Amino acid sequence: MSPTITEVDVYDIRFPTSEQLDGSDAMNPDPDYSAAYVVLRTDSPGGLAGYGLCFTIGRGNDVVAAAISTLRPYVVGRSVDSVTGDLGAFYRLLTHDSQLRWLGPEKGVMHMAAGAVVNAAWDLAAREAGRPVWDLLASMSPDQLVDLVDFRYLSDALTRDEALDILRRAEPGRAARAEALRREGYPAYTTEPGWLGYSDEKLTRLAKEAVAAGFAQIKLKVGADLQDDLRRMRLAREAVGPDIRIAVDANQRWDVADAVEWMHALAPYDPYWIEEPTSPDDVLAHAAVRKGQPTRVATGEHVANRVVFKQMLQAGAVDFVQIDAARVGGVNENIAILLLAAKFGVPVCPHAGGVGLCEMVQHLAMFDYVAVSGSLDDRVIEYVPHLHEHFTDPVVMENGRYQAPSAPGFSARMVPETLADYRFPEGPVWQERQERIR
Amino acid sequence: MSPTITEVDVYDIRFPTSEQLDGSDAMNPDPDYSAAYVVLRTDSPGGLAGYGLCFTIGRGNDVVAAAISTLRPYVVGRSVDSVTGDLGAFYRLLTHDSQLRWLGPEKGVMHMAAGAVVNAAWDLAAREAGRPVWDLLASMSPDQLVDLVDFRYLSDALTRDEALDILRRAEPGRAARAEALRREGYPAYTTEPGWLGYSDEKLTRLAKEAVAAGFAQIKLKVGADLQDDLRRMRLAREAVGPDIRIAVDANQRWDVADAVEWMHALAPYDPYWIEEPTSPDDVLAHAAVRKGQPTRVATGEHVANRVVFKQMLQAGAVDFVQIDAARVGGVNENIAILLLAAKFGVPVCPHAGGVGLCEMVQHLAMFDYVAVSGSLDDRVIEYVPHLHEHFTDPVVMENGRYQAPSAPGFSARMVPETLADYRFPEGPVWQERQERIR
Repeated sequence: MSPTITEVDVYDIRFPTSEQLDGSDAMNPDPDYSAAYVVLRTDSPGGLAGYGLCFTIGRGNDVVAAAISTLRPYVVGRSVDSVTGDLGAFYRLLTHDSQLRWLGPEKGVMHMAAGAVVNAAWDLAAREAGRPVWDLLASMSPDQLVDLVDFRYLSDALTRDEALDILRRAEPGRAARAEALRREGYPAYTTEPGWLGYSDEKLTRLAKEAVAAGFAQIKLKVGADLQDDLRRMRLAREAVGPDIRIAVDANQRWDVADAVEWMHALAPYDPYWIEEPTSPDDVLAHAAVRKGQPTRVATGEHVANRVVFKQMLQAGAVDFVQIDAARVGGVNENIAILLLAAKFGVPVCPHAGGVGLCEMVQHLAMFDYVAVSGSLDDRVIEYVPHLHEHFTDPVVMENGRYQAPSAPGFSARMVPETLADYRFPEGPVWQERQERIR
Repeated sequence: MSPTITEVDVYDIRFPTSEQLDGSDAMNPDPDYSAAYVVLRTDSPGGLAGYGLCFTIGRGNDVVAAAISTLRPYVVGRSVDSVTGDLGAFYRLLTHDSQLRWLGPEKGVMHMAAGAVVNAAWDLAAREAGRPVWDLLASMSPDQLVDLVDFRYLSDALTRDEALDILRRAEPGRAARAEALRREGYPAYTTEPGWLGYSDEKLTRLAKEAVAAGFAQIKLKVGADLQDDLRRMRLAREAVGPDIRIAVDANQRWDVADAVEWMHALAPYDPYWIEEPTSPDDVLAHAAVRKGQPTRVATGEHVANRVVFKQMLQAGAVDFVQIDAARVGGVNENIAILLLAAKFGVPVCPHAGGVGLCEMVQHLAMFDYVAVSGSLDDRVIEYVPHLHEHFTDPVVMENGRYQAPSAPGFSARMVPETLADYRFPEGPVWQERQERIR
């Protein structure tokens, strides 16, 4: 008999990252990287459970936790099989509650909360199946995969039949690509050198270290001050030489005219892409930025849902689609976005970093390679070397490549010590910090 | 000396409207109309306070309440004058908290919460000034008004100077239009006949009553079943005759092709507009629907912010802009949207109903008439005759027209009995209901 999900535990976990300015950028000067962390507990004697999280940058993490709690009635008391046996239905249930939907629809806190629970259910399913999520997904048939997708609002750009065609075309090569992935991993780039709060010396040193560690791409935060950016870009280019790609990221700082002006100024240093030049809601502005200056455009970490991604592609607004594991409605909605990107022939280069984002999103990129796009061309997953020690199955980075996870699940499970130490506000790390401030 | 804001009280108020199917539509079959209600309390001996709310339809109202609570540090302990003296700065403070912004940005639960607090601050300012909000706004100079707006992400469509021009052009006629408003009110339409859960008999009776009450426009919910909609549209047209406008509202039910097919079928009954044909995030789909069928397109009650409204206008996606008082970042962001609509020459026809939405949004439409667009052409505010008895200054509807509010404030203050009786879950109305269900 299938075990029953007995409880949805929600933890408000926060890390005081603002003390080191890790993660600082033009819009986020002092983030405390945080997670609203979810555990789907079961009565399985073996301790089977599902783990998921929503990443935030501090204040408001409790609001996401409250939103997750509203979803409890959809989960508690259900058999594991009734959830994991039809994850398409489970995802639609959570995102289409007619009353909760008013709070979005499908955007912001409520949608991120639904995504965390959906991801926890995927983790549960993968643990039950004894496979990592990327491999579980890659073992599903095209028909099973399209059943996971909500095609509502997509049909003017991607129908179920077109999605099936994409998946069927990629089917023959699945085994060979999975094998290559296990052997060689998936290419990564690092944002480590480029946080806006770092000194020039730290930037130069970290840029050189990144190249030595095997990364072929780094990223710099820009957008606060043009003269600073010109200097930092010059230093970075000098540090890494002409052959390493340097992406830049404005974190939504600009209007269209600012972006165009700024990127013309940075062009001599050959930036690889300009990320989040403006509002993530602004499809038309991204298209205008793409037309108005020479650097390719990337966005996605704050794109609220598949409907906005669809329009980014329809409008020719982006050169790179940056999915995020914990912003949209979980694995299911990200499958829709992967299919949309494949339809439009645009490479997916996931956003990661934060808390657990690298751990989770690697599964989606690897599934994309094995069973959707079938390609690694122009594809690279972001990597930031922080906070991985808090996870039971941290990412493994070798020579600038994510190594394919082999442990069952979605890699989002935190170690017990972290849950005890960093719980906000009652954990000892936060209690001590408060003492110090007093 | 200016009084100090001593506390932000937050109430989870819910009405069991699902029992009567008031408010039922194709996406929301059983809403319990609710409000996350905010009181900015002060130490003024006269009891000065500011009242605002966020409308929801039941579950999740507590999540919005939690989000409002995170904003407490921006309010408690400040002098009233420091808030009401620069409401532009106050609005930007709440919507640009760098950590909370991650939860949107500027969308969903966190943004609605900010809007509720901003609106409460406007209520406070208007009470202090002894004027209704519409009149307070209409007394401000064009320079003061543009200072209320956040032009970030707008400058490709509307600059500060263009906004100033719009406001200056409308300045000479302000007094005459305010006088006309006080004399004649502002035209309304009623959604009362058209809820999807109502019987044909109730629809026909209410449609006739609406015409008798002086309304020149009614609205029908559509989108669940085409044959039902054809029958209901025929009955409504027979009931009201050829000269009364019948708008239809699909509440986001369709994809583009559905909307085009459905509206071709309904066209013989001369629908006045099709409202929310598809996802409120889908600018390009709205534009496609507008091109693909003969009826004019309206949307806005779920449009997340000024950036999406801007694109709806840039893309020629809408014929009517439906602002909502409690979805975006409060009065300030709605001023930006009114200015965008004026720039593009598109009439604003506010969404209302719910809880307190009529009370609040009438102020914005009246301000638009007096000081922004300067016009009543093709303009009409939605009206639903429910739940007004819970407010101390309920809307006054006469002969199908909203009468201009004269009481100081934003009309969002609830009567004390409502706060006691409908508080969720501890209020007697909910306690009794739970007894009955047991």
